[in-house]
Amino acid sequence: MKKIPDEIIECLKENQNFLILLHQKPDGDAIGSAIAMGKGLKQLNKSVDYYIEFPIEDKLLFFNEIKCFNQQLQENYDVILFMDCSTGEFAFSPEKMPKTKVKLVIDHHKSNAHYGDLNCIEITGATAEIVFRILRALDVTIDEEMADAIFTAISTDTGSFQFSNVTTDTHIIASELYKVKPSYAHLSKRLHSQKNMDQMKMTGAAIHSLEILDSMPIAFMVLDYDTITKFGGSINISDDVANVGQNTIGVDITALLKEVRPGEYRVSLRAKFPYDIHEIALKYGGGGHERAAGFNFTGDIELLKEDLMEVYKEQSEQYETV
Amino acid sequence: MKKIPDEIIECLKENQNFLILLHQKPDGDAIGSAIAMGKGLKQLNKSVDYYIEFPIEDKLLFFNEIKCFNQQLQENYDVILFMDCSTGEFAFSPEKMPKTKVKLVIDHHKSNAHYGDLNCIEITGATAEIVFRILRALDVTIDEEMADAIFTAISTDTGSFQFSNVTTDTHIIASELYKVKPSYAHLSKRLHSQKNMDQMKMTGAAIHSLEILDSMPIAFMVLDYDTITKFGGSINISDDVANVGQNTIGVDITALLKEVRPGEYRVSLRAKFPYDIHEIALKYGGGGHERAAGFNFTGDIELLKEDLMEVYKEQSEQYETV
Ligand SMILES: [Mn+2]
Ligand SMILES: [Mn+2]
Repeated sequence: MKKIPDEIIECLKENQNFLILLHQKPDGDAIGSAIAMGKGLKQLNKSVDYYIEFPIEDKLLFFNEIKCFNQQLQENYDVILFMDCSTGEFAFSPEKMPKTKVKLVIDHHKSNAHYGDLNCIEITGATAEIVFRILRALDVTIDEEMADAIFTAISTDTGSFQFSNVTTDTHIIASELYKVKPSYAHLSKRLHSQKNMDQMKMTGAAIHSLEILDSMPIAFMVLDYDTITKFGGSINISDDVANVGQNTIGVDITALLKEVRPGEYRVSLRAKFPYDIHEIALKYGGGGHERAAGFNFTGDIELLKEDLMEVYKEQSEQYETV
Repeated sequence: MKKIPDEIIECLKENQNFLILLHQKPDGDAIGSAIAMGKGLKQLNKSVDYYIEFPIEDKLLFFNEIKCFNQQLQENYDVILFMDCSTGEFAFSPEKMPKTKVKLVIDHHKSNAHYGDLNCIEITGATAEIVFRILRALDVTIDEEMADAIFTAISTDTGSFQFSNVTTDTHIIASELYKVKPSYAHLSKRLHSQKNMDQMKMTGAAIHSLEILDSMPIAFMVLDYDTITKFGGSINISDDVANVGQNTIGVDITALLKEVRPGEYRVSLRAKFPYDIHEIALKYGGGGHERAAGFNFTGDIELLKEDLMEVYKEQSEQYETV
């Protein structure tokens, strides 16, 4: 495993009062990194505060350490830690930001703006991989809750060790976590398989609506207003729902329409290499990038289908002639 | 990583002609173990034949080495390798079994009957973990196809590193595979996310039919004959479909009814600790064990629901009073 720079380790060793901040709408990596880091620093008799946005997803609420979140803040800290957060603006911060001697950024996003006084930025599967190596360098003992936190973070950000961000080090760290606890099966289920009834029914409705456009590799799905309302609103439209189309063998382009208000749609587009759905999103006043884009839409859904088929036809011809 | 016994390594080194057999209906671990082992032996200039049951699942058909399966067999081998196969009877074997000097069993099933002349049995996440360690002991170079084979095997048998059979060694082996190839993202998608349109629609139909019995933690799902026929028959009813109920938060017992012929159902029951659905399966003339059982059923579905609710009520009272 790669070595953490000495100046980072020294900063953590030499200071006493820490505040941990995360990005808005914290995910498994953010929460897991915060808990492992916070508990590790406490083990070294440091004082640690957390300021973290709620609500936290149900599946992450089992950590005891969450009880320590958002207690009374101090006016001054030695170090404010920004974790899993690519820019300072994206951090969830107190309205009146406490003073600090050092801003320390620990993150794994390629796009990180290096906005700290000290920056520990590496392109890893999860921020928690960096945290694990920091804790090792600090000679902290990783307890079961910290192991669960690091596992949660890695498992969430790598899609259960499936994404292209997984490296040799990701698995070496996971192998070390199994020395702390013999099984993460229960936790993995909690993170990846379990859905509440509304989420399950929303997925069913998305599959039910799944339509292939005119024998082309285009999946078209509509969640209408009634369905969304019936199953608890758009908060219950998980990644799983959005992936129904792209996970169907033979599909290269997916459009998911969510009717957020009667007649008003939020359209999410996904494409596989070499297809590019960015321009059609721009045409409808939206944005995104080549393989994932979105826009708001009111109007005739049939015309939108025509447009998607046009895009596919043009691009597939283009690639055939290359 | 644990050491492979010397006698196993010597047997592989000293012999020349090998036949590889797997269990019937070979899965990702069986196919992956066979390919990694077979290609490894060939690298040592051994002669290797494979005798393997078809069809092989679509998602596994990308291996080049499959072209070498089921060629002309010899009458005599030095070693017949039984891989990922807990008993000799469960192996898919040629009608006229070739003669062999040694039967060598390589397997990870607890229940393995040690039916070989030599047995390399260890409780690992996948048989391919044992194969990886054998290849290392033989100083074989693992090429990309062998790495894909071992990854496929481990990823399949551990549910993408989620099941309770994962150990420190599982992740150490995975970490080594990333030194051969930098990403298994595409392969992971192929193994775990992608479904054909019929499988997708079957999942949708199962979710649509999902019903909670009278506010009890019992999920009841019916795939009727028309649905099953429409979406390609029961071969397209994957584990995902069966897990729809148990993956719904709050559900402890699931019944999935598949109408295999009009009016004739195959019932699959699943339960979470501490519930036991073995007895109700026995009552209906079926079998299984505490947490997974099944039986054939014709009759009034409403009565079956009543019976399940009775079982739940009795058992939940029993556990409350303990
Ligand atoms: Mn992250
Ligand atoms: Mn196996």
